[in-house]
Amino acid sequence: MRVAAVDDSGRLLETISKPTALAQGREHVVREISGSIRQLLPTFAHSHRWLGVGVGVPGIIDLERGTVDSAANLPGWNDYPVRHELETQLGVRVLLENDANCAALGEKWLGAGRDVNDLCMITLGTGVGGGFVVGGKPWHGVTGMAGELGHMTVIPDGAPCACGSRGCLEQYASATAIRRMAMEAVAKGTAPGLAEALARHGQEVDAQIVFECAQRGEPAAGAIFETVGKTLGIALGNLINALNLPLHVVGGGVANAWDAFSPAMMRELNNRSIVFRAGEPRRSQHKATAITRTTLGKNAGLLGAARLPMLAEKSACCSLAV
Amino acid sequence: MRVAAVDDSGRLLETISKPTALAQGREHVVREISGSIRQLLPTFAHSHRWLGVGVGVPGIIDLERGTVDSAANLPGWNDYPVRHELETQLGVRVLLENDANCAALGEKWLGAGRDVNDLCMITLGTGVGGGFVVGGKPWHGVTGMAGELGHMTVIPDGAPCACGSRGCLEQYASATAIRRMAMEAVAKGTAPGLAEALARHGQEVDAQIVFECAQRGEPAAGAIFETVGKTLGIALGNLINALNLPLHVVGGGVANAWDAFSPAMMRELNNRSIVFRAGEPRRSQHKATAITRTTLGKNAGLLGAARLPMLAEKSACCSLAV
Repeated sequence: MRVAAVDDSGRLLETISKPTALAQGREHVVREISGSIRQLLPTFAHSHRWLGVGVGVPGIIDLERGTVDSAANLPGWNDYPVRHELETQLGVRVLLENDANCAALGEKWLGAGRDVNDLCMITLGTGVGGGFVVGGKPWHGVTGMAGELGHMTVIPDGAPCACGSRGCLEQYASATAIRRMAMEAVAKGTAPGLAEALARHGQEVDAQIVFECAQRGEPAAGAIFETVGKTLGIALGNLINALNLPLHVVGGGVANAWDAFSPAMMRELNNRSIVFRAGEPRRSQHKATAITRTTLGKNAGLLGAARLPMLAEKSACCSLAV
Repeated sequence: MRVAAVDDSGRLLETISKPTALAQGREHVVREISGSIRQLLPTFAHSHRWLGVGVGVPGIIDLERGTVDSAANLPGWNDYPVRHELETQLGVRVLLENDANCAALGEKWLGAGRDVNDLCMITLGTGVGGGFVVGGKPWHGVTGMAGELGHMTVIPDGAPCACGSRGCLEQYASATAIRRMAMEAVAKGTAPGLAEALARHGQEVDAQIVFECAQRGEPAAGAIFETVGKTLGIALGNLINALNLPLHVVGGGVANAWDAFSPAMMRELNNRSIVFRAGEPRRSQHKATAITRTTLGKNAGLLGAARLPMLAEKSACCSLAV
């Protein structure tokens, strides 16, 4: 858990990081959050007006009720009035938001999306998530579930997914998928460099190690990032053909392997998206669809969360993010 | 070409239909449009204030310049200042809009989308087109090309498409695709009913005839609409997972075969879209993603075009549509 005080120019005034003791229950976690926030108060209490708290949550938020409806890592939080509890304990406005939407909003405010009002953020981590900013604000969708980009179908008869479908993007472009594909390549016996890395790191083999193998020229590792890029290209091409947004920001840990997967991604996009291609002559005038890496990295979500109370208010201010 | 006078309650006061003499050139067509509009003036001139003219165009519009950038059926119109010409000839405000966006706006105003502010319209005709309404207004995208839903990839290694990609939705869910699949089934020799229809109608075999074969129980015709439904389900599932819009309206001539393709479409959607499925318990409360047929049919685009000058103005009014 990271808690930060952020001013209205986007400066991180102070940050606190601490492990989230989820096992001790939701009441405990909420007390920890409000305790950390109180710890940060002296940082800005005399120089800034405190607008409120934005909280990025890895799950689906019920915005009306201020609860966390469905979050894999927060079992037992359903129906718990997180927002009301925090507001009562702190006496300020609290806004909950899905963490991927926070990251998208952060990039719009201070990162790759500063010059646009609409963008799509796709996060390649353990899973694949996403969020949209439309008209400068997070886009929630009718049931608050917008941004499930990891479950877009890219290969209709492809690998089965825990969501019940097959061939979801998450099965090809997440860190988990990269690890699975690496182990499959090793099992085939045609990837000596990966096999060596797997033997060395065992269960710890992650996307970064596969990326390093690809950089050293291991063809099997290169092929894995070809698949990452190709499937991302299909998914982004579909989004671009549909929405023609000005910007798509790729974040999450796998984005560190940008050099390995982005050539295949761009090739696939050019082949598949008539809308992306049509923007080509205008790309220099910023009147086309762009794809870029996150510029805020891990801070995107925290900064986006801090932005929420500012969007709800209008004057010069300061807010806290979790 | 159809020209209509529409009042601000959505009533068609009067409609004129005439063939569009495209071969006689753009200046001629524009004069025909303004002539037809003048013909309609007496219908409402004494009872209504005339707000302006909305024009639905089957192509990509440059909204700033008021030109038609790229339209397969309007060669030679590039850079021709259509909007300026019409405004000069008529002395009122003229708004150009892509025809699929007009249909989406029409459905939002008076049709299936009356109760929502955001929707996606997908039009299954000779090709597959689409349009989005976001916040009650047409969504254009950064280069004005949003809504190219026919070129979303549904089968990555599927049938080649004129756009340069493979496996585009248009290759499976358009009237053209239905005809192609019917001819392929006949060539295989396993579709006697279709073969008989093909022999009877020759080059005239269209989606309606294949639909009739499916209704009579021809398995090969049924299989074609399975493909239509399945690929639509993949494309809509991707859109719903990404955007979680409240409504998707299916229009165009192929929508008449709704009974033949919608079961496969809904099955695929349920299998593929975690966001669609999650809405299930709330569907009765209108807090979920819905898929429905057009309720305005061929009038959707005309009514949507008529809505454009009303959205640009605010008071009680009347406008004309082309």
